[in-house]
Amino acid sequence: MPLAQALEYAKLNRPRYLSELKDFIAIPSISTLPERKGDIQRAAEWLAHELTSIGLHAEIIATNGHPVVYGERLGTPGNSTVLIYGHYDVQPVDPLEEWVTPPFEPMIHGEDIFGRGASDMKGNAHAVIKALEARITSGDLAVNVKVLFEGEEEIGSPNLETFMIKYKDKLSCDCVLNTDSGILRPDLPSLAYGLRGLVCFEILVRGPKNDLHSGTFGGSVHNPGQVLSDLIANMHDRDGRVTLPGFYDRVRTLSNEERTELASIPHSDRDWRELTGVPQLWGERGFSTLERIGTRPTLEINGLLAGFTGEGVKTVLPARAIAKISMRIVPDQDDEAVYQQLKEYMRKNAPPTITWEIRKLESEAAVILDRNTPAMRAASASLEATFGVKPVFDRKGESIGVPSLTKKILGKDSVLMGFSLPDDNAHAPNEKLHLPNYYRGIETYIRFFDLISAANSPGQLKEY
Amino acid sequence: MPLAQALEYAKLNRPRYLSELKDFIAIPSISTLPERKGDIQRAAEWLAHELTSIGLHAEIIATNGHPVVYGERLGTPGNSTVLIYGHYDVQPVDPLEEWVTPPFEPMIHGEDIFGRGASDMKGNAHAVIKALEARITSGDLAVNVKVLFEGEEEIGSPNLETFMIKYKDKLSCDCVLNTDSGILRPDLPSLAYGLRGLVCFEILVRGPKNDLHSGTFGGSVHNPGQVLSDLIANMHDRDGRVTLPGFYDRVRTLSNEERTELASIPHSDRDWRELTGVPQLWGERGFSTLERIGTRPTLEINGLLAGFTGEGVKTVLPARAIAKISMRIVPDQDDEAVYQQLKEYMRKNAPPTITWEIRKLESEAAVILDRNTPAMRAASASLEATFGVKPVFDRKGESIGVPSLTKKILGKDSVLMGFSLPDDNAHAPNEKLHLPNYYRGIETYIRFFDLISAANSPGQLKEY
Repeated sequence: MPLAQALEYAKLNRPRYLSELKDFIAIPSISTLPERKGDIQRAAEWLAHELTSIGLHAEIIATNGHPVVYGERLGTPGNSTVLIYGHYDVQPVDPLEEWVTPPFEPMIHGEDIFGRGASDMKGNAHAVIKALEARITSGDLAVNVKVLFEGEEEIGSPNLETFMIKYKDKLSCDCVLNTDSGILRPDLPSLAYGLRGLVCFEILVRGPKNDLHSGTFGGSVHNPGQVLSDLIANMHDRDGRVTLPGFYDRVRTLSNEERTELASIPHSDRDWRELTGVPQLWGERGFSTLERIGTRPTLEINGLLAGFTGEGVKTVLPARAIAKISMRIVPDQDDEAVYQQLKEYMRKNAPPTITWEIRKLESEAAVILDRNTPAMRAASASLEATFGVKPVFDRKGESIGVPSLTKKILGKDSVLMGFSLPDDNAHAPNEKLHLPNYYRGIETYIRFFDLISAANSPGQLKEY
Repeated sequence: MPLAQALEYAKLNRPRYLSELKDFIAIPSISTLPERKGDIQRAAEWLAHELTSIGLHAEIIATNGHPVVYGERLGTPGNSTVLIYGHYDVQPVDPLEEWVTPPFEPMIHGEDIFGRGASDMKGNAHAVIKALEARITSGDLAVNVKVLFEGEEEIGSPNLETFMIKYKDKLSCDCVLNTDSGILRPDLPSLAYGLRGLVCFEILVRGPKNDLHSGTFGGSVHNPGQVLSDLIANMHDRDGRVTLPGFYDRVRTLSNEERTELASIPHSDRDWRELTGVPQLWGERGFSTLERIGTRPTLEINGLLAGFTGEGVKTVLPARAIAKISMRIVPDQDDEAVYQQLKEYMRKNAPPTITWEIRKLESEAAVILDRNTPAMRAASASLEATFGVKPVFDRKGESIGVPSLTKKILGKDSVLMGFSLPDDNAHAPNEKLHLPNYYRGIETYIRFFDLISAANSPGQLKEY
C-alpha cells in the first residue's frame, strides 16, 4: 500500500517538517526591498538544498531579478509530467509595530504558526516538497515532476515570462500544479477556477514647489491633499461602482448558473464582518459579497501620503500628495485599457491648479480555468479524500498572474491548489499558517500525485 | 546724536552680529521633538547669555514644558515699559531630503542666510537684541524693557498662558512689541493689524482591524483611504467654501472700507503664483487673494497617511487612514465652535462602514488690533524712516496666539513688527532670512526704542 505508506511517513515526520518550515520562514526573503537581496539568495539556496535532499536534481537559475529555483525528477519517461509552481519571496512587514511577534522569528500559538510568508506561501511550498519526499521515499512516484519556485511573485513576477520563454522546453509538461492558493475554511476545501487580475498605479499630485506655510498661503493655493482626496472620492459613485470612463465595458455579465453556483458556497456576511472587524460590510450595489470579491472589479487605495504625518502639528500646505492605487480586474478587462481609462479620468477631472502624474507599476491578467480537466478532477478527488467533503468551485478575488502565463507560454491549464486560509493575514501584520491545514495539505498533495501517477502516457491523465 | 551713534554702532558690528546669528540658528531647538529637549535648553542658555552680555538681568524660568527666557532692564523707573515677545523654538525639518543645505548648518547664499528658524524667528529675535545692544551701548535707552522668549510657540504655546498669569506683575508693561512677524516685501514695510487664528485636528478613520489583502477582501470592505478621501473632498464645495455646518456664521463681513484698504496693498497674483510655483491660484469664489489670506477662514490638509507608502507595490486594503487638518479661523470664529462643527460634519457624513475619531490638537485665537495706538504709530514712523516708504497696514494669514494672550492677561495691545518675508520658506524646507532685511530690522528697532523712549511716564507714550 504505497499510498498508506506515504501518508504514514508524512505523519511520523511532522515534527521534523515543522522544524524545517520554521527555518524557511525565518529567512526574510522580501523581494521588493533591495537590502534583502542576500536573504532572497539564502532562501533560494535553502530551497535548492531541500529539493536535492529529497532526490530531485535542483539548480538555481539567474534571471534579471531574483533567481528561480528549479528542480526535476524525470524518472518515468513514458509517464505524465507535472510542473509545480510556487514562490519563495514574501511581502514587506510594515507596519512592524502591529506584529505581536517578530515577523521572521516564527512562533507557534495554538494551532497556528506566525511569521511573514507562513501562509503566502512558504507553507504551501514546503507542503508540496514534503509530499514529494513522502512519495519518493515510499518508492512510488510514478509521475515526472518539475518544480519552479520564483523569487519575484510579490513584486509582480517581472522576469518570469522571459524565463519561461527561454526555458520553454525544459518546462514542458502535461499540467501545472500551482500551489499559490488557498481554501475557504479548514473544514471546507475549495478549488479556485477564477482569479481577478491586478493593475497597480501611483498617482502624484503636485501643487506648490515647496511645502508652504498654511497661514501665509492657505486659501490662495489649492491644497494637493485636498485635490487628491477630491479625485479619489469621485472614482466611486454612490452605488460603489468605479466611475472611470468605460471601466465596466468589458466586464463579463454573470450568468444565472454562475450566480447560483456561487450562492451555494457556504458564506456568512456576519462571519466575514467579524473576520475583518469592520462595523458593516460594503460593496457594489446589486451583488453578493462572494460575487463582489470573485467576479467584480474594484479600485482600492493601498496607500496615501502627503505633508506632515508625525506626532503633533505642522501647519504645512504640502507640495505634493501621493496615492497608491490598485485595481482588481476581471475577464475580459485589460490592464492597458484600464490604464488609459485612469488617465482619461484624470484628464477630465484634475483641476488646472495642480499638475499630476500616473505611473503604472505592475499588472496581472485575470484568469478563468476549465473546471473539467483530468488534473482538476484529480485535485478535487484528493481534497475530498483528505477533508472528507467535496470541494466547492470558487472564484477568488486574488490575482496571480502565473496561470495565464503558463497557459500562454506552455499551453497548459493550471490546477490551483494550496492551503492558505482567508484569515491567515496574508500581506498584513501577524501573518500565520493553520498547522492542521498545512498537514492536510501534505496529505492532499500525496494523494494528488498518486492519482495522476496512475496515468501512463504524456497528455493522458487518468480520468476521475 | 545718540540715535545716529546707535545706528552707526549697529552698522559697524554687522559681521559680529551675523556670526552670532549663525551660532543661534545652528542650535536645533525643535520644540515638538522630545529628543531635542537638550537643544531647547541650549538655545535658552544661549539667549540668556546674550541678554546678560548686553546689560539685561536675565533668567531661565522653568514651565511645565520648555523654559521661558526672561530678561529686563528697568533703569528709568519713571518711564514707559515695553514688553518684547519672541520665541526661540523652531519647526521640524522634514522632509529633510528637500533641503539643499543642512538645516542646522546655516549658510549664506547671495543675500540670504539658510537654516531652520532663520526667518521664523531667530533672525527677528536676534535683531531686537542687537538693537537693544546698540542703544544701551550708546547710552540712551530711556525706556524700560522686559524680554520674554518662549520655547513652545511652534507647538502652540501650551504653557504660556499659565506662565503669564503666574508672572503677571513681573510682566506688567505699557505696550507689547511682538517680533514674531514679517513685512510684505524688502521694499515694502508693513504692519499687521489682523491675524487669523488656528485650530488643528487629527481625523482617524478605522476600517478593518488589520490591513487586509486587497484581493481577498477588496470589494467587500469599505477602504478607509477612500472613506477619508470622500470625507475630505466634501469639506469644500465647488466655490472653495468650507461646508462644515455653521462654519461662516460668525465670520465678520468685510466692510467696503477694509476691502478698499486691502486692495491698495501692492500685490500681484502673477508674482504670488511664481512664488509658490503653482500652475494656477485657487481660493474661495468672490474674494481677492489678499482677502482670502487675511480675512477668510480656510481648511487645510496638512498631512495624509494610509497603508503602504514606500517604493513599489503592496496591495493592502489599509486598516486605517489619518488626516491632519488645520483651519485658519477669523474674527469672530471660535475654535471650540469649529471643533463642534467638524464633529457634526463627521456625524452627518461618515458612513456606517467605518468608525472615526477626531482629536483637537491645538488652537490660537484670531486677532484684530487697533491701528491708532501710540506704539503702533511709533512702529509706523520707525519703519518709514528706515525703509523710506510708509508702511501699509495688513491683515495676515498666519496665526500667533500671543497677541490675544497678552491682551487678555496683561491688558495691553501689541505691535506686530518683525522682518520675515513671504518667500522665506517658514515651516518648509530651505527656510532662509533676507540679510538686508535683518539689518534694516535692527535699524528699525533702534528707531522704535528711540521714539518710545521719548515718552516720560508709564502709560503715556509720545504721540506720532
